Amino acid sequence: MSQYWSKLVHNLDPYVPGEQPKDQRYIKLNTNECPYPPSPKALEAIHAAADDTLRLYPDPNADTLKDAIADYYGVTRANVFAGNGSDEVLAHVFCGLLKHDKPLLYPDISYSFYPVYANLYQIEAQQIPLREDFRLCLGDYSVDNGGIIFPNPNAPTSMAVGLEAIEALLQTYPDSVVVVDEAYIDFGGETAIPLTAKYPNLLVVQTFSKSRSLAGLRVGFAVGHPDLIDALERVKNSFNSYPLGRMAIAGAAAAMRDRDYFETTCQQIIATRAATVQKLTELGFSVLPSAANFVFARPPQGNAEAIYLALKQRGVLVRYFNKPRINEYLRITIGTDEEMTEFLRILTEL
Amino acid sequence: MSQYWSKLVHNLDPYVPGEQPKDQRYIKLNTNECPYPPSPKALEAIHAAADDTLRLYPDPNADTLKDAIADYYGVTRANVFAGNGSDEVLAHVFCGLLKHDKPLLYPDISYSFYPVYANLYQIEAQQIPLREDFRLCLGDYSVDNGGIIFPNPNAPTSMAVGLEAIEALLQTYPDSVVVVDEAYIDFGGETAIPLTAKYPNLLVVQTFSKSRSLAGLRVGFAVGHPDLIDALERVKNSFNSYPLGRMAIAGAAAAMRDRDYFETTCQQIIATRAATVQKLTELGFSVLPSAANFVFARPPQGNAEAIYLALKQRGVLVRYFNKPRINEYLRITIGTDEEMTEFLRILTEL
Repeated sequence: MSQYWSKLVHNLDPYVPGEQPKDQRYIKLNTNECPYPPSPKALEAIHAAADDTLRLYPDPNADTLKDAIADYYGVTRANVFAGNGSDEVLAHVFCGLLKHDKPLLYPDISYSFYPVYANLYQIEAQQIPLREDFRLCLGDYSVDNGGIIFPNPNAPTSMAVGLEAIEALLQTYPDSVVVVDEAYIDFGGETAIPLTAKYPNLLVVQTFSKSRSLAGLRVGFAVGHPDLIDALERVKNSFNSYPLGRMAIAGAAAAMRDRDYFETTCQQIIATRAATVQKLTELGFSVLPSAANFVFARPPQGNAEAIYLALKQRGVLVRYFNKPRINEYLRITIGTDEEMTEFLRILTEL
Repeated sequence: MSQYWSKLVHNLDPYVPGEQPKDQRYIKLNTNECPYPPSPKALEAIHAAADDTLRLYPDPNADTLKDAIADYYGVTRANVFAGNGSDEVLAHVFCGLLKHDKPLLYPDISYSFYPVYANLYQIEAQQIPLREDFRLCLGDYSVDNGGIIFPNPNAPTSMAVGLEAIEALLQTYPDSVVVVDEAYIDFGGETAIPLTAKYPNLLVVQTFSKSRSLAGLRVGFAVGHPDLIDALERVKNSFNSYPLGRMAIAGAAAAMRDRDYFETTCQQIIATRAATVQKLTELGFSVLPSAANFVFARPPQGNAEAIYLALKQRGVLVRYFNKPRINEYLRITIGTDEEMTEFLRILTEL
């Protein structure tokens, strides 16, 4: 506390990301990174960009990257916003599109950054409970609102909702912006991006940090109607004209263009997830049906915290949330086959 | 305009950065980049970081970089905040330290992003006029205030104020945060960082985009009392936990450690500036005394806009501001000796 702080700062309750150990001793299954390296073409593009031109500012509009994203999804550059990780994109979304007189709605169990953004931008929010079995039922969003945001698949619960339910929600609230946060969509869900052509109130947010193996580069993006993108550009250009450096633009654009590599690694993670779920189930864990690159699982005795600590002591990091309803669960990122075999061996020996 | 925009967005008046042509045909003297490449050690560190570990999130606290900055300036890690360019750092400063009941003060002619931030965070601001000769006189800051910010050297006017004047200001307003924005300090000014040990209300902001030749990497930082840094960390962790990617951390830390290269390039720019000022003066230009890597100069006929356009047509970009008091001036970045010779040749032939 300090007299120099703006009033707002006193009331902030910042987000706490998963542990990022600096030694690399751990089997790291706690922050949902991809266990596979970035596309070789992305690394090649990054090396090519790391030259004397770094003395120059990047393109403030990151058009090369926007074009690569637009090409991939069959939209236009005007439909795409890019930022310094999807966290920055989401921050601008909360500021520019979700602050209204009516309350913002999001799930009670969800990405724990949402309440932090709402607090930062002083947005009134109302949490809509997931069902008893952790299903996100968009029909439950029956409160008059100024906006709706949810992850699909949801985190940390890993379960996806279908496009019919999303479309019904868009039709129910044509005056509200509906934000679908698709950080994990590439591991089994169906992206809502095609619906943006039909619904001017839909914004889809994605990241390069998971399925595109570039968490260390910091790139995220949003796709939607140009009016929504325009709001984000206005906020961005009132905050930081150049959020993406030259290497981020080059690397992310190349990663987006390398469709084969992306599809291969996603499929491999889906296969490893199936094997992991089977093993965990055999060990008596209850595992929620996952469409993400992680699973959310309850150990037979519900002693999730004890298992989290015991795994950490043995060199395996998973994520434990000491929060109501989910404090008997562990969120376990899907690593390589070798990592999951080792994780399961250690788990069995606890 | 759109019904989906937050009310705030309707009133934003975003910052417009200098032109960033995508072809590199121009002699680019318009955005105050360094004409010399980054330190070879910085590029080496960036290439070393551009590997498979990019799949992993960076250190959210960027400790390696903070330590390099702390070592350079003889402060501790707790005195340092790092962000995605000094623009992002400044945004968090406005949000976390400069929003108070009393008005924020800054010069009328100054970095044109300040009013944009004030608008974004709805901070009441009062502009204090520079003197007739464009001098920034801190004694003129005689309004009861909730904070003060100014660039030193000032931009686009290039003139520096001394530490005695800054110290007097800090003593006059011990309850206000005073932010010295030192984007251009390394080209002839004296940094106020040593004063941060004595004044808990002083925050100094710097960037890697100018004197450290890394505008394309997006790194800026602030140095001050740990209480001020703590406010910035709280805002940052409510906005984006990982603003700096792995390559930004590695490259900027290496650049900060390469003291020799940094001093050599700064000295070269200072020498080129002296020669340029002499030539411009011979051509009848009025040139303000510059402590920056640019000069602010009035052509003999005051026809700055016409000269800006004529230069652009001939492949030279300089910056022209169509604003009261400065619309007869050009801001000209100091390039290499060769670039300045060519610029002066073209200028003479207009």
